[in-house]
Amino acid sequence: MRGGDPRAIARAISALENREPGADRIVQELFPYTGKAVLIGLTGAPGTGKSSLANCLARHYREQGKRVGVLAVDPTSPFTGGALLGDRIRMQQHATDQGIYIRSMATRGMLGGLARATADAALVLDAAGKDLIFVETVGVGQDEVEIMRLADVTVLLLVAGYGDDVQNFKAGVMEIADIFVLNKADRGDTDRLENELKVVLGLGQRPDHWHPPIVKTVATDGAGVPELAAALEDYRAHLERVGLREEKSTQRWQERLVDLIRERAVERVVKAGLGKEQLADYARQVARRERDPYTVVEELLRTAGIAE
Amino acid sequence: MRGGDPRAIARAISALENREPGADRIVQELFPYTGKAVLIGLTGAPGTGKSSLANCLARHYREQGKRVGVLAVDPTSPFTGGALLGDRIRMQQHATDQGIYIRSMATRGMLGGLARATADAALVLDAAGKDLIFVETVGVGQDEVEIMRLADVTVLLLVAGYGDDVQNFKAGVMEIADIFVLNKADRGDTDRLENELKVVLGLGQRPDHWHPPIVKTVATDGAGVPELAAALEDYRAHLERVGLREEKSTQRWQERLVDLIRERAVERVVKAGLGKEQLADYARQVARRERDPYTVVEELLRTAGIAE
Repeated sequence: MRGGDPRAIARAISALENREPGADRIVQELFPYTGKAVLIGLTGAPGTGKSSLANCLARHYREQGKRVGVLAVDPTSPFTGGALLGDRIRMQQHATDQGIYIRSMATRGMLGGLARATADAALVLDAAGKDLIFVETVGVGQDEVEIMRLADVTVLLLVAGYGDDVQNFKAGVMEIADIFVLNKADRGDTDRLENELKVVLGLGQRPDHWHPPIVKTVATDGAGVPELAAALEDYRAHLERVGLREEKSTQRWQERLVDLIRERAVERVVKAGLGKEQLADYARQVARRERDPYTVVEELLRTAGIAE
Repeated sequence: MRGGDPRAIARAISALENREPGADRIVQELFPYTGKAVLIGLTGAPGTGKSSLANCLARHYREQGKRVGVLAVDPTSPFTGGALLGDRIRMQQHATDQGIYIRSMATRGMLGGLARATADAALVLDAAGKDLIFVETVGVGQDEVEIMRLADVTVLLLVAGYGDDVQNFKAGVMEIADIFVLNKADRGDTDRLENELKVVLGLGQRPDHWHPPIVKTVATDGAGVPELAAALEDYRAHLERVGLREEKSTQRWQERLVDLIRERAVERVVKAGLGKEQLADYARQVARRERDPYTVVEELLRTAGIAE
């Protein structure tokens, strides 16, 4: 896997994703070899062209001899279980190139854990020698925010002609992006969007003194991609210069440790005997208002030895 | 609070949101009075007009003498902590009307819990006699999916002219919506979006045999709102007819119980001595690759008495 063999990478990611026995040991063993890759988050609403842009960036960095990983995070489909088709189509474009690894991530099961699985997959790609790892997510939800927090740098894609104006975007999204990309920049009203965005960005001052740049791209033909790569490098250099690289990394690990505690604790409760049927029984009692949820949960925690 | 007093409602929601001492007792006491309100989720990308539509629906139901609650869920701003301004502006429109209660929900603190806080707020509004509770969320992330799972019925807002076509919307979002609203339907290309959406919806069959209707609205002038209210009633009647109402409610409670276990378990670890500084120390060690995250987390769980 450390040599970059795609099948070995795939097996390791699957083992971590499914929490197979021995998964912890994989992380423990590969962890010392991680910390070298740059994790780049690409976020934006559906249709803004995140996948096309990830492809362009991958091509750009491959031409420079860099090794690249792409993790595509899709929202869960409760019925079908995520979009694997697009993944396969995209894999084919790079099928002969061992220097690029593309994978779809989708939640599964009642316990969730998409952010954790994505974080683990990024660790695998990091240990496997990828220089850059792109993580694409749809939308601006809490889970996206969680996944984006993994990233060393976050790129938000916007497309002109949607929403009434930039004021519609929530403050949190604006502040979480380190670089703004106006994709499909061949559209007529991109300049207006850029001006509005400049006004909004001009109002604030980030604690890290970074001024998020705006880059215009046309991901379908690769226009603006070298400029985006330059902006990514600028941001990395800025963090290094102001000495925030380790502090940001520590902050990220803090959040991930809390996520891991959360996930593991639920596993303990499940192991202590909360099977699917028991859970359904409890849920039915609550749905019928026979018992209240907090009393039920305290009982389950006590049964699992997780005392007050 | 059960009489609908806005200040009492606000206090109860805040107590639950902040997990104040005695918060559990509030839920235990109000729980038997819940289960009457219909929870309606409104979701869609930023700028699709969720807030305007929630306002229109609130007005529509108020005119019928129904009591209404609105919970506006915003993505976290890691720096500012959420958009309270819009909330206040919207409150003013209904300031003299005790029959409507509007509240913004935003995550806070290192432990998250937005979905849980929203669920608890909905319980308070339910016990306070609201007949309908609207929950609006931005985007299509995992947390949105979690919050939308609370809802008895989910409405997805789309606006024509954004994204290339309906195929861009991920399978999960399509399947999670019970009713599709094409808002800003006075835009020229709404009919094309409607046709595309019909094709996509025609491809699938839901396990509950419901065919999600498409309703065109112009939330700024209230057009289509009575039709949307009729569609909401149709869906409720359909669930009743096919006998799925309790099953869906049980399913929802199942997910909420798991969320509660997750949250409470983390609280235990924090109480067992994982303060902010300790957490930062551990995170720094991991960021420096001095220790691996899984070994650290197992140690923390053991300290909190959450044994393997």
